[in-house]
Amino acid sequence: MGLISFVEVDLDSHFPIENLPYGVFRPSSACGGGDAAAPRPGVAIGDFVLDLSVVSSAGLFDGPILKNSPCFLQASLNMFVGLGRPAWKEARLTLQRLLSVDEPILRDNSSLREKCLLKMSEVEMLLPTVIGDYTDFFSSMHHAKNCGLIFRGPAKPIQENWFHLPIAYHGRASSVVISGTPIVRPRGQAYPTGSSPPYFGPTQKMDFELEMAAIVGPGNELGKPIDVNIAADHIFGLVLMNDWSARDIQAWEYVPLGPFLGKSFGTTISPWIVTLDALEPFACEAPKQDPEPLPYLTESKHVNYDIPLEVWIKPAGHEHPVLVTSSNFSNLYWTLTQQLAHHTINGCNLRPGDLLGTGTISGPEEGSVGCLLELTWNGQKPQNLNGTIRKFLEDGDEVVFKACCKGKGYNVGFGSCTGKIQPAIP
Amino acid sequence: MGLISFVEVDLDSHFPIENLPYGVFRPSSACGGGDAAAPRPGVAIGDFVLDLSVVSSAGLFDGPILKNSPCFLQASLNMFVGLGRPAWKEARLTLQRLLSVDEPILRDNSSLREKCLLKMSEVEMLLPTVIGDYTDFFSSMHHAKNCGLIFRGPAKPIQENWFHLPIAYHGRASSVVISGTPIVRPRGQAYPTGSSPPYFGPTQKMDFELEMAAIVGPGNELGKPIDVNIAADHIFGLVLMNDWSARDIQAWEYVPLGPFLGKSFGTTISPWIVTLDALEPFACEAPKQDPEPLPYLTESKHVNYDIPLEVWIKPAGHEHPVLVTSSNFSNLYWTLTQQLAHHTINGCNLRPGDLLGTGTISGPEEGSVGCLLELTWNGQKPQNLNGTIRKFLEDGDEVVFKACCKGKGYNVGFGSCTGKIQPAIP
Repeated sequence: MGLISFVEVDLDSHFPIENLPYGVFRPSSACGGGDAAAPRPGVAIGDFVLDLSVVSSAGLFDGPILKNSPCFLQASLNMFVGLGRPAWKEARLTLQRLLSVDEPILRDNSSLREKCLLKMSEVEMLLPTVIGDYTDFFSSMHHAKNCGLIFRGPAKPIQENWFHLPIAYHGRASSVVISGTPIVRPRGQAYPTGSSPPYFGPTQKMDFELEMAAIVGPGNELGKPIDVNIAADHIFGLVLMNDWSARDIQAWEYVPLGPFLGKSFGTTISPWIVTLDALEPFACEAPKQDPEPLPYLTESKHVNYDIPLEVWIKPAGHEHPVLVTSSNFSNLYWTLTQQLAHHTINGCNLRPGDLLGTGTISGPEEGSVGCLLELTWNGQKPQNLNGTIRKFLEDGDEVVFKACCKGKGYNVGFGSCTGKIQPAIP
Repeated sequence: MGLISFVEVDLDSHFPIENLPYGVFRPSSACGGGDAAAPRPGVAIGDFVLDLSVVSSAGLFDGPILKNSPCFLQASLNMFVGLGRPAWKEARLTLQRLLSVDEPILRDNSSLREKCLLKMSEVEMLLPTVIGDYTDFFSSMHHAKNCGLIFRGPAKPIQENWFHLPIAYHGRASSVVISGTPIVRPRGQAYPTGSSPPYFGPTQKMDFELEMAAIVGPGNELGKPIDVNIAADHIFGLVLMNDWSARDIQAWEYVPLGPFLGKSFGTTISPWIVTLDALEPFACEAPKQDPEPLPYLTESKHVNYDIPLEVWIKPAGHEHPVLVTSSNFSNLYWTLTQQLAHHTINGCNLRPGDLLGTGTISGPEEGSVGCLLELTWNGQKPQNLNGTIRKFLEDGDEVVFKACCKGKGYNVGFGSCTGKIQPAIP
């Protein structure tokens, strides 16, 4: 028997009562918040946002953990995600009850209801957490293989270490932006031709990378690793992520210390964090790993999630977006929990709100690869987008990621993660 | 004519009135602050710390920028460093006047003086800024060459790109700790031998890296690069930094995305930020660069600083530390301003308080290299430390970095940056 909310939710909505993803928003002036309205946490329900600061101030979080907690009176979700799974469970139960068709407390109190349920079209979404550190993994085998073939040739496309550990690098936290933020084409150096100096100018190989990212929960103290079998308790939920990449800058700079300016000009995340609790019905077995991982990466519950992913591009000047790739989160070889356990095995501390990207999620088929580098094979196989040809992204192109899990009669969706390319500065 | 302070300062002190480095401290309970005493900014003068929150509350910052600013009533220096060079100049002038032997306002007010001048031995030093992002460069040619020889052999020890751009990678901000914090030996994976699985356990190649790091001032908006010729206005000052490294973990994991767990278990910085203004008398010409850098890296004022650096190790169980290397900041090939301009050329935003490490500062001579990897040639040439042999660091070893510029009759010093190795967790 499914849950039903008194808030009307379309059948194709990403945000029914089974989902209830968390975000941070600012009411726009149109709905009375004024320009100076402070950012506050909310959950999405249908076409509405439930203002958790109002719910909290009205005393409706009445469970033992959240009753007197100021966690929803903050400008970010860091305090709430830091409280851990018991608090997350309590909040979810409370919110599903408050929004249920059988519960009168909000349903029948029109003044409170109007105060706390705002139209999604009338709020501005912000970054959901203050991101202390952003790490990006490299956990799709198909992506690792394709990149190896393109950059190093067919001899040994995947390095020996890849099958033993979830490879990752530290990303740039300051340039993580919320969906909808324009992305300025970066300038930088690229490979010299012959004996010329290196190329300098706007990147000629602007790319997207289809990723998802975990938002870290409580985390750990420096020097105290998190066991892989309790790692899930440190993952609050997931967002969509576009790790924009300038392939020519990246190719020239990345030896020997890894990607730097080829990726640090912007990373876009979707605004709604879908919790692992909401994703539970979509858990599926993760790929069998060969060779068997070392004991610290061997987990009793080795799961991925069945999250269908799509990338659409609306080319500059076009009216309609074109579907360019369809992948699935379940293509990941290393699980979220293995990533998190590996990240802390040396004692590295994770903090609430940290961001752990999965790396580009490519599947095995040609139509399921997660970036243009792979799709056009580094520009050698240009793609036809409704009559327009693309090797890489052009100024004015808009990239839209979508993700939606299909349940029995309901969705658990992520909304979208979008960004439009602006011309480089002169 | 030199400045003289009414505070007595030993001739060999690192902290005379010419220096006045900034830090953040908490009074220890012994000096009346109580356990709950809030962190606040201070400057070092001789064996004392001047409490800037008290100076500010007493209305003694009377210049136009700082008069009504709450920047010294914060738990970090982020707000102050974000104000930029005019505020830094004003603060320096004000503090040099307040501490001068000719100025009665503090000198003759014993109750205020006792409130704001605390013994350095009775305060606890904390991280001076909240570090949004930590970047580590790779700017010593000697270090790059030695690492290349050790890891890849003599064919082409320095990669082609190195001479065209200041190579860097993103580091881990969460594990940056203040001098004196113990460092737990990390566990992790290392290269397999033959057909065995990879090694797993405590690192067997624990190393230090002698670095300095810049603290970023105002910084820039996303998408708006900082010109190399104004980059110095975005550098507040310098600290000593030990980028602890586990060489076996690093060697196995770093291809193709760069160092990760081999370095993210701890990075130690010294507590006092020495300003570029205080370092001005020690500016010196930076090395001529060949090939000539691209225009965006060509600067009208191409300077390093003459900062003598020392690394001492106090081996476990020994009473006295042993000098193991002597280098100099002036060994850097890429300047701080080139590093900063390069970092932002793609539009990446820097925020006040960010940390930019120089990379290991090795000189050309054998006794001037900045890590044990180079000094023992990856363990092949063990070093004799007062009768104790070391390939890499052992549990209980304490590493002490020192830096001190020698002026005419005064020093501008950095104090020390220390850390002691603790055993790995079982």
